[in-house]
Amino acid sequence: MPAYATNMRMKFPIVALTLEIITIILFGVFVVYDDGKSHGHKPHSNETHHDENPMDLYPMFQDVHVMIFIGFGFLMTFLKRYGFSSVGINLLLAAFGLQWGLLTQGIWHLDDGKIKVSIFKIINADFSTATVLISFGAVLGKTSPVQLLIMTILEITIFSINEHLVATVLEANDVGASMIIHAYGAYFGLAVARVLYRPGLRNGHENDGSVYHSDLFAMIGTVFLWMFWPSFNSAIADPGFTQLTAVINTYLSLAACVLSAYAISSLVEHKGKLDMVHIQNATLAGGVAVGTCADMNIGPFGAMLIGLVAGIISTLGFKYLTPILASNLGIQDTCGVHNLHGMPGILGGLAGIVAVALGKKEGICHSKVKGQCYYDLAKGLSDQTIHFLLQGLIMKLPFWGQPPDQNCFDDSIYWEVPEEEEENEESLAHGDHSKNKAEV
Amino acid sequence: MPAYATNMRMKFPIVALTLEIITIILFGVFVVYDDGKSHGHKPHSNETHHDENPMDLYPMFQDVHVMIFIGFGFLMTFLKRYGFSSVGINLLLAAFGLQWGLLTQGIWHLDDGKIKVSIFKIINADFSTATVLISFGAVLGKTSPVQLLIMTILEITIFSINEHLVATVLEANDVGASMIIHAYGAYFGLAVARVLYRPGLRNGHENDGSVYHSDLFAMIGTVFLWMFWPSFNSAIADPGFTQLTAVINTYLSLAACVLSAYAISSLVEHKGKLDMVHIQNATLAGGVAVGTCADMNIGPFGAMLIGLVAGIISTLGFKYLTPILASNLGIQDTCGVHNLHGMPGILGGLAGIVAVALGKKEGICHSKVKGQCYYDLAKGLSDQTIHFLLQGLIMKLPFWGQPPDQNCFDDSIYWEVPEEEEENEESLAHGDHSKNKAEV
Amino acid sequence: MPAYATNMRMKFPIVALTLEIITIILFGVFVVYDDGKSHGHKPHSNETHHDENPMDLYPMFQDVHVMIFIGFGFLMTFLKRYGFSSVGINLLLAAFGLQWGLLTQGIWHLDDGKIKVSIFKIINADFSTATVLISFGAVLGKTSPVQLLIMTILEITIFSINEHLVATVLEANDVGASMIIHAYGAYFGLAVARVLYRPGLRNGHENDGSVYHSDLFAMIGTVFLWMFWPSFNSAIADPGFTQLTAVINTYLSLAACVLSAYAISSLVEHKGKLDMVHIQNATLAGGVAVGTCADMNIGPFGAMLIGLVAGIISTLGFKYLTPILASNLGIQDTCGVHNLHGMPGILGGLAGIVAVALGKKEGICHSKVKGQCYYDLAKGLSDQTIHFLLQGLIMKLPFWGQPPDQNCFDDSIYWEVPEEEEENEESLAHGDHSKNKAEV
Repeated sequence: MPAYATNMRMKFPIVALTLEIITIILFGVFVVYDDGKSHGHKPHSNETHHDENPMDLYPMFQDVHVMIFIGFGFLMTFLKRYGFSSVGINLLLAAFGLQWGLLTQGIWHLDDGKIKVSIFKIINADFSTATVLISFGAVLGKTSPVQLLIMTILEITIFSINEHLVATVLEANDVGASMIIHAYGAYFGLAVARVLYRPGLRNGHENDGSVYHSDLFAMIGTVFLWMFWPSFNSAIADPGFTQLTAVINTYLSLAACVLSAYAISSLVEHKGKLDMVHIQNATLAGGVAVGTCADMNIGPFGAMLIGLVAGIISTLGFKYLTPILASNLGIQDTCGVHNLHGMPGILGGLAGIVAVALGKKEGICHSKVKGQCYYDLAKGLSDQTIHFLLQGLIMKLPFWGQPPDQNCFDDSIYWEVPEEEEENEESLAHGDHSKNKAEV
Repeated sequence: MPAYATNMRMKFPIVALTLEIITIILFGVFVVYDDGKSHGHKPHSNETHHDENPMDLYPMFQDVHVMIFIGFGFLMTFLKRYGFSSVGINLLLAAFGLQWGLLTQGIWHLDDGKIKVSIFKIINADFSTATVLISFGAVLGKTSPVQLLIMTILEITIFSINEHLVATVLEANDVGASMIIHAYGAYFGLAVARVLYRPGLRNGHENDGSVYHSDLFAMIGTVFLWMFWPSFNSAIADPGFTQLTAVINTYLSLAACVLSAYAISSLVEHKGKLDMVHIQNATLAGGVAVGTCADMNIGPFGAMLIGLVAGIISTLGFKYLTPILASNLGIQDTCGVHNLHGMPGILGGLAGIVAVALGKKEGICHSKVKGQCYYDLAKGLSDQTIHFLLQGLIMKLPFWGQPPDQNCFDDSIYWEVPEEEEENEESLAHGDHSKNKAEV
Repeated sequence: MPAYATNMRMKFPIVALTLEIITIILFGVFVVYDDGKSHGHKPHSNETHHDENPMDLYPMFQDVHVMIFIGFGFLMTFLKRYGFSSVGINLLLAAFGLQWGLLTQGIWHLDDGKIKVSIFKIINADFSTATVLISFGAVLGKTSPVQLLIMTILEITIFSINEHLVATVLEANDVGASMIIHAYGAYFGLAVARVLYRPGLRNGHENDGSVYHSDLFAMIGTVFLWMFWPSFNSAIADPGFTQLTAVINTYLSLAACVLSAYAISSLVEHKGKLDMVHIQNATLAGGVAVGTCADMNIGPFGAMLIGLVAGIISTLGFKYLTPILASNLGIQDTCGVHNLHGMPGILGGLAGIVAVALGKKEGICHSKVKGQCYYDLAKGLSDQTIHFLLQGLIMKLPFWGQPPDQNCFDDSIYWEVPEEEEENEESLAHGDHSKNKAEV
């Protein structure tokens, strides 16, 4: 199978070490510690923390950190034989991504020619990795670590440009980042998944599913994401009562979302049973959808309505839309990120437009008519589809070590997997020794 | 089997969505954000936080949140085939319960006719769900999601009345809630378990036990509960040194409790081996038992003594009392909540009486002779047994979808369970295809 | 097999309860709550927190707490049949160790004849248990709970003396404790492992390895350690920007370390595959190595360089050095603590010497020429090897219940293990019933 160069022996170490060394050099040139003395640019509201204890945001940072590394990492362990990659490659991409994000985000806010690292900045660096981890979900099981490192660089670079445009040029407000993180990450990932379309997986793959314990590991990810989402949506909000508002809106939106996700899951499934895929994912849609207007005065009632709707559309998406995307559009979205981050992200953007139109937030969209800036933002993001596809094409280059179809969703192509377990699984599968052929 | 209408297809979605929509409407009428401006009722000591940063308690809230969703959820995953329900239904009940708790607790403290949501209030809302999750442990594996949602409404409503009576009318102090959460939740659950008694399970059930990995999942719950219990017992204590006292007492009580739980487990087991059931549960009894007097000046030494005793009685309870309750009283307590929350909760109440009698706390029980209020409290709780039984009877109504005996402790009656795993388990069980009969 | 008295029925309960009761008595004599009024000794910089809210450090304490109980506990669950012991005995040792550490550390800082417990003190108590948990990793699977309790007492007592000498007499700075915790814990453990050398395990042991899900459980430990390490290295740093520096250095060192650990793992493994042992451990070496100079002005770039190097030497150590230590020196290091804590700890000490020599930190090593105190420290630690070996000899006494070779790495010798699972495993192993012989 000459088209697949899945042996990572030289290419992965070279790419990883080269990227890291370049990054360290750039840090040597550009990055210093925050010393609390900032000049050179007018601080906007998000940075008023600097006047206070530089560690004030640290507990919130740690919550976000847990979401990135435990939350996203374990959420993807639902696949029966892809847990090492889910949590392990998640760690790799996020660890590199946060360094890259610090650079590409910081470059827009130089202070005496330096990027001054504060807790606020490392929260944003963590945020930037979320975009990559969302996209990772769309292509999970079908890409090599080298491809994914390349995706990390490109996606975070574009994200940082977007974020700068949205926050500084459009002066729009997206505190919980429904659009600039969730919708962006989802559609980026879907575009890449489209380019990497595998006709050979049209009829499914024996490893593209869960086993009992892998579904429980995934629930670790789900529950940590669910619990700490209030921190995600409020970490960079203005301190005080605005931050409290963001926490409460997210807490209540998520709570309402759980009820609707469970209800719809039971409604659409065989004999009213609950489906773990829905529970693991759609219960989180309320956090995504309330993101943009988390810090607005939408009322606890408004937040819960958003969560309720998000849980419904997310669950319905998993049930009805994902199969259509795969069969009709050639978009094989492994984790269903379209349902968790894509549609709820757009819902969040729409909710933000409505909330602003209803006057729930002052002081945003200074330069535009109310609502217009969100339109611009949505349009800007959709215009980027072309970039996304280009990015997918770059990743498609054959020498990045993409796995052949029969080795998709299988850790053993990139990881040493304990032998005994493989034996067990094989003996359980009644002597099916064929699955690791391509590996030999 | 006509008596069991376990198909949830219509009844669960209708109940869940109806409850959520009613809740949202009530939130629309009653609930607003805390704005820091409170009038209309004299703030008592627990609410002095309001003068400070409204986010001060947020890290403590997140610790409690982790206990509720990860702690309780995973603690119950010890059953070999009931992990989806344990962590999944835990999420459902807690997500609904916290909304219901915000309403039923808040109704006693209206401010200009509104419930003003603060971090303090959402900590208390999380607390209210703990009562339900404790009771859930007593009936784990033997109830349907609809039954449990009904239990959630009733139990939290009664809890909120109790809490109001205890805190406001009796002016008693139960900072860590040994009695009003732990003992209450346990005896409520035991009463329900009694009403739902299943003679068919007298000789055990093949699924009423653990496998190796399910016991490890349960330890995730145990350890998170153990670590964050100091936050549970101190979150609503007076700020400053009183809160520090509550943290240190809980930290030390739990540490001492571990030693005694391990020692007694080894002492009573075959060949001195440790029993996972004891380790998963009795190590936590120190947190329950030190609850009531956590913020009192009982001395580090006093806290450790309480923990030591709690670990001993809890472990002995699992070994000797639980079988007696099941065979003689018809109380089948799946998780042994009587040993973790019931007896240690009572021990906590007694310790509180002693501590108050010894003058370790001033300013409580204003309206009563010292100790008397605790007696009133204990009597009041026991009087409620009749309510508990009524509640159990309501839950027993046949159309709530309670599972038949042979499907107890089995996720597959309410969940889509991965097929491959079932095959494996079946092949391992040497072709036993009978267990899912009732499902077909 | 008369030499092995592995029945714990009397000896374990007696040892555990006796230790706990003695500890409680000592607490009764010596320990009180911190009341914020300190006199009797000049507060040094680490204790300036006392002037502020006594709960300021609480979120950091909880992060460290998670590292100790979830991090270390689950990191060691990688063994296929030793998960109960890993997380369970970890809990036992840490729960006892923190009480013992509070006493032995506090005895050097008596205030009016009392040890006043504050958040600062319980963070340090948690730290003291880390030394034991590191050593536990070296002897994992080959020791009894009684042996390990004895090790806990001795190791923490010596640690407290060391810490006092380093901080007070040498006036050296080791904020993240690369040397006094990590290197000390590792070499202590290696010395014990040497004394307990088992020729019978030279050719490996069937249970000395992982299965698929045990590796995933271990990743829970890895990721929580990785995420919260910035708290470990900064918790006792001076508040404000110094603490921020410690957080950022650790965050960046760990991120760089991930890239180098993954790269080298792929480079040295068969077909470029990643090895879970490396990923679980070597990704953390950056946290260890940056410990000593975490609060120094080494620059983000310097921290990343340290992390990069640590990831490389740690991974190489697992691949090449561990087998040599086992075969040539008779040091069977189960978890490879030499690679995660030993060498990176020494690297951290060296980095500290270099950083001090380059003037990155003022105000340390008052009594000595710069760098000299670190030399003294290193020499002091190495002189202790003789104590370590003595300690190992004490533990070797036959009546502590050490397991025979064939029962190493097997929970079932000290734990009730679910039967069904054992059956499954046995049927999977094609009828191999021999492994539990010694138990019968």
